[in-house]
Amino acid sequence: MGEPSGIGPEIAIDAWFRLRDGPVSFAWFGDPSLLVATSARIGRPVAIREIGNFAEARAVFRDALPVVPLGISVAATPGQPSPANAQAVLRSIDLAVAACARGETAAVVTNPIQKATLYAAGFRHPGHTEYLGEIAGGDAAPVMMLVCPDLRVVPVTIHLSLRDAIARLTTEAIVATARTVDKAIRREFAIGAPRLAVAGLNPHAGEQNSMGMEDSGIVAPAVAILRKEGIDAVGPLPPDTMFTPRARPTYDVAICMYHDQALIPLKTLDVEGGVNVTLGLSVVRTSPDHGTALDIAGRGIADPSSLVAAIRLAAEIAENRTKGDRRC
Amino acid sequence: MGEPSGIGPEIAIDAWFRLRDGPVSFAWFGDPSLLVATSARIGRPVAIREIGNFAEARAVFRDALPVVPLGISVAATPGQPSPANAQAVLRSIDLAVAACARGETAAVVTNPIQKATLYAAGFRHPGHTEYLGEIAGGDAAPVMMLVCPDLRVVPVTIHLSLRDAIARLTTEAIVATARTVDKAIRREFAIGAPRLAVAGLNPHAGEQNSMGMEDSGIVAPAVAILRKEGIDAVGPLPPDTMFTPRARPTYDVAICMYHDQALIPLKTLDVEGGVNVTLGLSVVRTSPDHGTALDIAGRGIADPSSLVAAIRLAAEIAENRTKGDRRC
Repeated sequence: MGEPSGIGPEIAIDAWFRLRDGPVSFAWFGDPSLLVATSARIGRPVAIREIGNFAEARAVFRDALPVVPLGISVAATPGQPSPANAQAVLRSIDLAVAACARGETAAVVTNPIQKATLYAAGFRHPGHTEYLGEIAGGDAAPVMMLVCPDLRVVPVTIHLSLRDAIARLTTEAIVATARTVDKAIRREFAIGAPRLAVAGLNPHAGEQNSMGMEDSGIVAPAVAILRKEGIDAVGPLPPDTMFTPRARPTYDVAICMYHDQALIPLKTLDVEGGVNVTLGLSVVRTSPDHGTALDIAGRGIADPSSLVAAIRLAAEIAENRTKGDRRC
Repeated sequence: MGEPSGIGPEIAIDAWFRLRDGPVSFAWFGDPSLLVATSARIGRPVAIREIGNFAEARAVFRDALPVVPLGISVAATPGQPSPANAQAVLRSIDLAVAACARGETAAVVTNPIQKATLYAAGFRHPGHTEYLGEIAGGDAAPVMMLVCPDLRVVPVTIHLSLRDAIARLTTEAIVATARTVDKAIRREFAIGAPRLAVAGLNPHAGEQNSMGMEDSGIVAPAVAILRKEGIDAVGPLPPDTMFTPRARPTYDVAICMYHDQALIPLKTLDVEGGVNVTLGLSVVRTSPDHGTALDIAGRGIADPSSLVAAIRLAAEIAENRTKGDRRC
């Protein structure tokens, strides 16, 4: 469901129209009456079918949008998030993760949430990903990867000021992130020998320490450790030239030192909507790479492309995991 | 000429082949024997014509590559820059700028230099642009703009570590840079009412001070000052979403806070070669947006696209300047 006053409900409806004739199906975890109201508001009539068990979703998907009710009613005004819905937002995530953990569904796709509203209701996690790390975590911390057709990027530091991102960047964090990426991408993207390109922190990757010491002091040692472990990592690479059209095909994932170093090139390319994938969870989880878009919610003009791409990629990852597990 | 042991000589030859039948002509300021040797080495025979005065270039351009000799002979081994050539490298720049200042030529295009080699020979400027600021500067400091067909970017801080770029970012620097850009782009790109998009420093432009205070404390005040002066600046914008395909057409120039924030999106898009333009000089100056490429020099495989684009853009800017001056 995600934030009910954002674009989540309407892009779920639009995603169903785009996917209903294809091989991938989904169910929406939320209050059915919210979807009925949204359908009326945006003027796109849609058949909605309440299901008790996720397994029924496949059977009804071509004819109706399957909904798993939360047992909590949700009243939402587009553009005006309310802390009153915080429990329903979290319950939607919890139920979807539980269905996935029980094997009823192959993957979880999360619509964007409004963190400030959840905080006001007592939520204590920095974000969606960290919450999922708690309820469906593995041995290592979950890692955020962003994917578009031409590029996969992973930021080692995420929601920090640029100053704090530099201060908190460590060799250990780079190594831990790259290990999770290397392991997950083999299993989830069926890439047998992943090539990781590790970005430098500074312009020109420091140019022999003339512009910052972090590239030789923090990034290069991480690459050395990874290579010793047999992980195909190269770097630190000059950040500005590693995303050119010629450079991109030379690696499978770019390991980036800070949020915008990863997100700027991805969104520069991002025509049809990138996808956020969480690596290192027990369940497969993807999400669209945009926010709740409160400013346009309820008007029926939101672009469902990123959600559709997230659902398709989730199915692909789940299939790769299953095939890989069979091979083992 | 640029660095004679880099790819400069061979891309000058290739640029001549690409441009000889078109409306734009150039002369090469360097040692003619170096060009003869390069032509033989890369196996592309080219007619070279020494000229004494730049004005002769246009007349010979279709039949031969015009060369203005430096009066200094240059012996260069591809890939091995020598401080012995530093004086010739600087003389090439000086003569070209002087010819432009005298009105014999419309613009200066500089091939990449090897700064370390110039430093070893006593050069004392941080780079090409600062040197040109000294010999052809205006009232304000020169500003580096990078241009590709879909995007123009200007970094406010340039060759600094990321840590230093944050520490040295000031409201005054952003304002001074944006003023130079606003003034120059009207005259040189014939854009009557330039729209400047000012990037934030931190992820999500700080998200209401939750990720760094610089966006509200340094960037926002700069935008306010610029708007009071009647400059159409907006920001601070979230850096990751301002370069999407939908956002790019909404502004004419992105004013960026640090080197890679500007160069990553540009080079991500940069299929055919971006161009570096120096704003705020008395002469028109462009250059390719790559380096000397010592690793491939002399093999005839360097891509001249960025140099060709730089020459074409220099001609376009010079024409806009002339037209604008006539209108005044």
